[in-house]
Amino acid sequence: MTVSPNRINSLASLTGELRALLGDRMSTAAAVRAHHGKDESCHTPHAPDVVVFPQTTEEVAAIVKICASHKSPIIPFGTGTSLEGHVMALHGGVTIALTNMKQIKRVSVPDMDVTVEAGVTRKQLNEHLRDTGLFFPIDPGADASLGGMTATRASGTNAVRYGTMRENVLALRVVLPDGRIVETAHRARKSAAGYDLTRLFVGSEGTLGVITEVTLKLYGIPEAISAAVCPFDGIEGAVDAVILTIQSGIPVARVELMDAESMTALNRYSKLNYPEKPTLLLEFHGTNAGVREQVELFRAIATEHGGGGLTWATSTEDRAKLWQARHDAAYACMAMRPGTRVWPTDVCVPISRLADCIAETKRDLSASFLFAPVFGHVGDGNFHVTFVLDPNDPQEIAEVERLNERLVMRALAMDGTCTGEHGIGSGKMQFLIAEHGEGVAVMRAVKKALDPDNVMNPGKMLKM
Amino acid sequence: MTVSPNRINSLASLTGELRALLGDRMSTAAAVRAHHGKDESCHTPHAPDVVVFPQTTEEVAAIVKICASHKSPIIPFGTGTSLEGHVMALHGGVTIALTNMKQIKRVSVPDMDVTVEAGVTRKQLNEHLRDTGLFFPIDPGADASLGGMTATRASGTNAVRYGTMRENVLALRVVLPDGRIVETAHRARKSAAGYDLTRLFVGSEGTLGVITEVTLKLYGIPEAISAAVCPFDGIEGAVDAVILTIQSGIPVARVELMDAESMTALNRYSKLNYPEKPTLLLEFHGTNAGVREQVELFRAIATEHGGGGLTWATSTEDRAKLWQARHDAAYACMAMRPGTRVWPTDVCVPISRLADCIAETKRDLSASFLFAPVFGHVGDGNFHVTFVLDPNDPQEIAEVERLNERLVMRALAMDGTCTGEHGIGSGKMQFLIAEHGEGVAVMRAVKKALDPDNVMNPGKMLKM
Repeated sequence: MTVSPNRINSLASLTGELRALLGDRMSTAAAVRAHHGKDESCHTPHAPDVVVFPQTTEEVAAIVKICASHKSPIIPFGTGTSLEGHVMALHGGVTIALTNMKQIKRVSVPDMDVTVEAGVTRKQLNEHLRDTGLFFPIDPGADASLGGMTATRASGTNAVRYGTMRENVLALRVVLPDGRIVETAHRARKSAAGYDLTRLFVGSEGTLGVITEVTLKLYGIPEAISAAVCPFDGIEGAVDAVILTIQSGIPVARVELMDAESMTALNRYSKLNYPEKPTLLLEFHGTNAGVREQVELFRAIATEHGGGGLTWATSTEDRAKLWQARHDAAYACMAMRPGTRVWPTDVCVPISRLADCIAETKRDLSASFLFAPVFGHVGDGNFHVTFVLDPNDPQEIAEVERLNERLVMRALAMDGTCTGEHGIGSGKMQFLIAEHGEGVAVMRAVKKALDPDNVMNPGKMLKM
Repeated sequence: MTVSPNRINSLASLTGELRALLGDRMSTAAAVRAHHGKDESCHTPHAPDVVVFPQTTEEVAAIVKICASHKSPIIPFGTGTSLEGHVMALHGGVTIALTNMKQIKRVSVPDMDVTVEAGVTRKQLNEHLRDTGLFFPIDPGADASLGGMTATRASGTNAVRYGTMRENVLALRVVLPDGRIVETAHRARKSAAGYDLTRLFVGSEGTLGVITEVTLKLYGIPEAISAAVCPFDGIEGAVDAVILTIQSGIPVARVELMDAESMTALNRYSKLNYPEKPTLLLEFHGTNAGVREQVELFRAIATEHGGGGLTWATSTEDRAKLWQARHDAAYACMAMRPGTRVWPTDVCVPISRLADCIAETKRDLSASFLFAPVFGHVGDGNFHVTFVLDPNDPQEIAEVERLNERLVMRALAMDGTCTGEHGIGSGKMQFLIAEHGEGVAVMRAVKKALDPDNVMNPGKMLKM
């Protein structure tokens, strides 16, 4: 790529202004830039020109103003655990790493809410909450930052009971593309005052502003928590058991499907010894009596569908081990074929279509040469085909792209979505159009209104 | 008001085009216009020039295109039960009454969701669902249309457990201000695909487009439902009991506070015989064992706070009677002083501030000459002072305005909102600014982007 002399001059001037503001809390070092130009996906990394490390919202606002005056791209960065190329600096520019904004600003036990800076991770928050009797449930697997989780509308294993970031963010502090600072809401649990600015920024993937503070709902740690591993004779039975569990109103806290291939990978990677069959991993939250009741109801459903032989994990340690293994599933898949990477997909369909969607997908996969275990948050209708591929083999990449497109189109035809929780990033922009049609024009109008110069995370979500 | 000859010509041409499209499904009759120019608030009615009664989304789109070409105001109208002047035709124009759009388009029992036309009311929907084992919980009291409830982000007595319209709308069909038709989402329970267009229109009060179809979450009818009336020695004790109930994680389905004045009004109006003391009305949903457990936990909390002597309503009829009485509370207040109207207020604060907010408000009220009972959805931190006034007495109106402003400012100072569920309409525009500050500029930018000519419900929510 040739760089014009104008761009070099402008970049020198931008860098100079940022250095004057931040001193050594900015970097143009190649290693730092490279680290902040990639996420955990297979999408090609693009390093930004500069990485800055602000400490306050006001500093973020000052940075954004400088960038805006140069019309420089601005890319917010949390922990780099996104999965659709959200943080790649496709057009260069300034990456704002929220790494130094890790303060927990306030906790209210009586109101069961908390305000954190955007760089606080979910594990840091739950560690901090340990003695309060409260916890924050949303758990996408990675120890992601809460700002990043907000920006991608993350969810994960607990969403079936506790909802996603959409339901659990009460208010945000956001720096707009021109440097103004906005609070999207107060702390009341509900409000009918004006447009829902909070929800506008939840899932906006850094394209409308930089989220610097997040106010979140918290939950009481349940009196009883029980996790279970339940193998099934076939994947259809497991899926049908999930559907019936949800339809029966059993308030299951987690219900994860793993196919037989995933269980093999899990056993090897995490040194476990579960049956290598289609399996549900479950967790029940409630009072002691409530959990007993849920478990009995589930057991009856499982038995009817060829499931049984539940293994229980009730101690904190056993549960932690189980869910860590689940969270490591993608790494476990990768380890089955050394030297590879994973390409996680992410569709979500109405639960009545889940069995069909998984069955058709499994047929597709069994006709392919790729190793691609299937697992996911089936209580929400959300599942992932995890393609294990050699990222340097164009034939394998083409095969993943072909099967992923078929998967997305299948989900859309079933009234589902192209992404349950990973987001659009740079990887799914064509699918956003397939899903939303005319709605994309509305999204573009909103983007144009708030970010007329397209400085915020350009090249992501919407083609402007 | 003098009307310019130009406006008369333009109106004649607009009316002609609408008549060509709709035949007798439009009206310029004074009585029809007057009926559609008012809601249930004390705000001054303003009749539109024309009222139209479309039967399909496509017809709404055609109407909107005609109006847009004349730059005529467009006001969507559900049942006229809004409480902040949302449907007044402040600048004349065309009111689109969704009255004829009452089709329930599809129900999915396995997915527990439903798609309705915007004119379907909540009671009509629940009647339709009767044999499915499912119900739609959101209950603002009035038998409002689901389009109107969506547009005002309504909630009501059940929100403490089931959430508000914000949490329960899955997708919308909307006619944009230029006549384009948009579907905001598919039916998947969660999605990370693009900006949350659904939430952008939920609570937009007809200022961004006309909602013509609503897809809603449904819930299984609980195995057990028990309602109770629990009088307390003092209002502080009742409020503290609610706070502790919520904080203890008891999943109460409804918990309504009525002050002693409200109970007196209720007894007289609905011919009941409850103690005329500060009272909680509650409802518990769950399994038989679950409800028993909730009731015992609540009873212990109530006893500690000077509450007791619970009266139970477990049969469907008794519960219906109890909640009808609660829903009639505003009428009951009005009946205490014949010839008056009510001016309902609507603040919501974090629950830790609820006791203070109610206590300070009661002190304010006791120093005023107005009769103003207090009741509300205290489990959410939401309550209403219901001013009973002679709408022809400027002194009484001034006193309501003074006390309402103090109430709103008190709630905002406590990190609350100026409206928990009634919305902004034309009545609370100055409070929106007090609450959101710079955020209002973001709302204006969004409005301007989607409705550059300000045809959609002008004069509501945002001053453009």
